[in-house]
Amino acid sequence: MGNYAIAIHGGAGSLMTGTVTAEKEKEFNDKLSEALQAGYNILSKEGTAIDAVEAAVRVLEDSPLFNAGKGSVFNSDGINEMDAAIMNGKNLRAGAIAEVHTVRNPISAARAIMEKSKHVLLASTGAEKFAKEAGLEIVDPSYFYDDNRHKQWLATKDNDSINSWAGDGIPEGTKKHGTVGCVALDSQGNIAAATSTGGINNKKFGRVGDSPIIGAGTYANNKTCAVSCTGEGEYFIRNVVAYDISALMEYKGLTIAQATAEVLKKVALLGGEGGLVAIDAQGNISAPFNTNSMFRGWINTAGEKFTGIFR
Amino acid sequence: MGNYAIAIHGGAGSLMTGTVTAEKEKEFNDKLSEALQAGYNILSKEGTAIDAVEAAVRVLEDSPLFNAGKGSVFNSDGINEMDAAIMNGKNLRAGAIAEVHTVRNPISAARAIMEKSKHVLLASTGAEKFAKEAGLEIVDPSYFYDDNRHKQWLATKDNDSINSWAGDGIPEGTKKHGTVGCVALDSQGNIAAATSTGGINNKKFGRVGDSPIIGAGTYANNKTCAVSCTGEGEYFIRNVVAYDISALMEYKGLTIAQATAEVLKKVALLGGEGGLVAIDAQGNISAPFNTNSMFRGWINTAGEKFTGIFR
Repeated sequence: MGNYAIAIHGGAGSLMTGTVTAEKEKEFNDKLSEALQAGYNILSKEGTAIDAVEAAVRVLEDSPLFNAGKGSVFNSDGINEMDAAIMNGKNLRAGAIAEVHTVRNPISAARAIMEKSKHVLLASTGAEKFAKEAGLEIVDPSYFYDDNRHKQWLATKDNDSINSWAGDGIPEGTKKHGTVGCVALDSQGNIAAATSTGGINNKKFGRVGDSPIIGAGTYANNKTCAVSCTGEGEYFIRNVVAYDISALMEYKGLTIAQATAEVLKKVALLGGEGGLVAIDAQGNISAPFNTNSMFRGWINTAGEKFTGIFR
Repeated sequence: MGNYAIAIHGGAGSLMTGTVTAEKEKEFNDKLSEALQAGYNILSKEGTAIDAVEAAVRVLEDSPLFNAGKGSVFNSDGINEMDAAIMNGKNLRAGAIAEVHTVRNPISAARAIMEKSKHVLLASTGAEKFAKEAGLEIVDPSYFYDDNRHKQWLATKDNDSINSWAGDGIPEGTKKHGTVGCVALDSQGNIAAATSTGGINNKKFGRVGDSPIIGAGTYANNKTCAVSCTGEGEYFIRNVVAYDISALMEYKGLTIAQATAEVLKKVALLGGEGGLVAIDAQGNISAPFNTNSMFRGWINTAGEKFTGIFR
C-alpha cells in the first residue's frame, strides 16, 4: 500500500493572532480536524483520493463556521449563492457548478457533473435541475441561513461588495476570503482536488470567482499536483493559479513548494492576496498564503496531523 | 510604428471540401474578411489590440452565419444563451460573461466587466443586469432568432445535446463547434484575445463551455501569446488549453507553432477536437485545428490577407 496524505483549507484572511477567542479558535480547529479525519479514514482503507476530498469538503460545507454550503455568505439579493469544483488527477476528469441556491452539498453536485454528464461546468437554475435529476439532496434556500452571516450582510449590504467578516468571537472588519478546499493523495498514487464556496459577501451581478474554474481555483493531474485555492478570486483567475503550479512543476521541474511560492508571488504582483493547499504525487504538501491567516490542516504521509489558523 | 496583425476564427467542425455551395462559401469568406478588416482598420491607425479584437468579434456576433450573438444556436429550452470573454495581454486584465439572453454583443459586455467592474466573470441574470447598468445595448431575446438555427434545434431537441449543424447550403449532419474569436497584436506591442459563442445546440442544464473561461478558451499575455479556442469545450477546459500554450512558450521556450501543436495533441489524446487562433508579441500567427475545417482568417504583419474554411 503506497503513501497517502490529505490537506485542507477553510479560507485565507486578515485574522490576526490574539484577536479570536480561545473557544472560537478551538471550535475552528476541531472542525478542521473532523474534516481531515473524514477524508483520512477513506484513504487509510485504500479508498480513493476523489472520495476523500469530497468527504472532507462535505464536512466543511455542512458547518456554518466556513463560507461554503451551510453558512455561506449572502449575495446582494440576500440569498446564498454557491460554487464548487472537483478534479481527478488520474484521468483529468472534472466537474464544476456555479450559482446554485438549493443543492445541500455543491461539491457532490460537482462530482455528479464529472461522473454523470458530458459537461464540466453547469450554472444557475440549469445546474440545480441537473443536481435534482441526479438524485442529490435538494434543500430549501433557507437551509443555508446562518445568523452571523446574515448580520454581516445586513451591515454591508448598502455598500459595495465588501469581503469583511465578523461574527461571534471574530473582531469587526476582519477580511476573509471564504472558501473551503481539499487535496489528497491515495494509496494507489492518484491525487484529487476539491473546492467549494459561498463567494463574496454582498456579491452582485452573478459574480463567479475562481473556485469553480478548472485551472484557476481547482486543478489536479497525477503528473504534477492537486491544488485548491482561496483568496481574491479575480486575481486567481487572471493568473490561472492552480494550473500554473502544475505547469511550473511539469515544464520547469520546480518542486511543489517552489511552484506554489512562485505563483503566489505572481498573484501578489498584480495586487491580489490569498492562499492554497497543494499536494504532489509523492504526498508532499504545500500550504502557503500571503494573508495574515489561513484556516488549514493536513495529515502527512507519516500520519502527522496539524491544524491551524495563524502563521 | 511597430508591426501589427490580426487573426480570427468562426468555429471548427466536420465540414468537408466540396460539400458546401460556392455561394455559401463566398458568403462565409466575405464575412470573415469584413471582420478582419474591422479589426485591421483599428490597428492600422495605431489603435489598440483590445479595440481590434472587440470590433472583429462584434462583426461575427452580428452575423447570423456564425454561432455567436445573432444566429446563436438554441438551448434545450428553445432560447439563445451566450458566453464571451476578452483578455488584455498588456495588464492581464480580463472580463467574461456567461448564460446571457438579452445582451446584443456579449463581447462588449465582457469588455465592460473587465473595465468597469472589480470582477472577471459574471453569469446569468446578474450579468444581464450589469450589462444594462453599464449602458450596453439590450435586445429582446427574439433578436437572436435565426430560422436555420431554429430548424436545427427543432430537428434535434428530442435527442440529447447534439452538436450537429445544417442550414441553407450546408449538408445535414455536419458537426460544428460554433464559436467565434479573434487575437491581435497592435503597433505598441500589446496583444489581446476575444471569444464569443452561443454554445452547443440543444444544450441543457446551464452548460458553460470553455469560451468564457480565462485560461481555457481565452487568454492573452504580452510575454507569450494571445489565444482564442473553438471546439469541444469540455476538453479545452480540462486541458487549460489557452494558458497551456502560454506556459509552454514561457517555461519551455517553444515557438507559438510548436506550443499550439503540442496542446492540440493533448486535447486529441483525451478524445477532444477543435482548433484555435493564436498570435505572439512578434505577430507570428498560428491557426491549427484537428477537425476537417475551421472558418478562419488573418492579416499578417506583411499585410497579407487570408480567409478559408477547409484544410
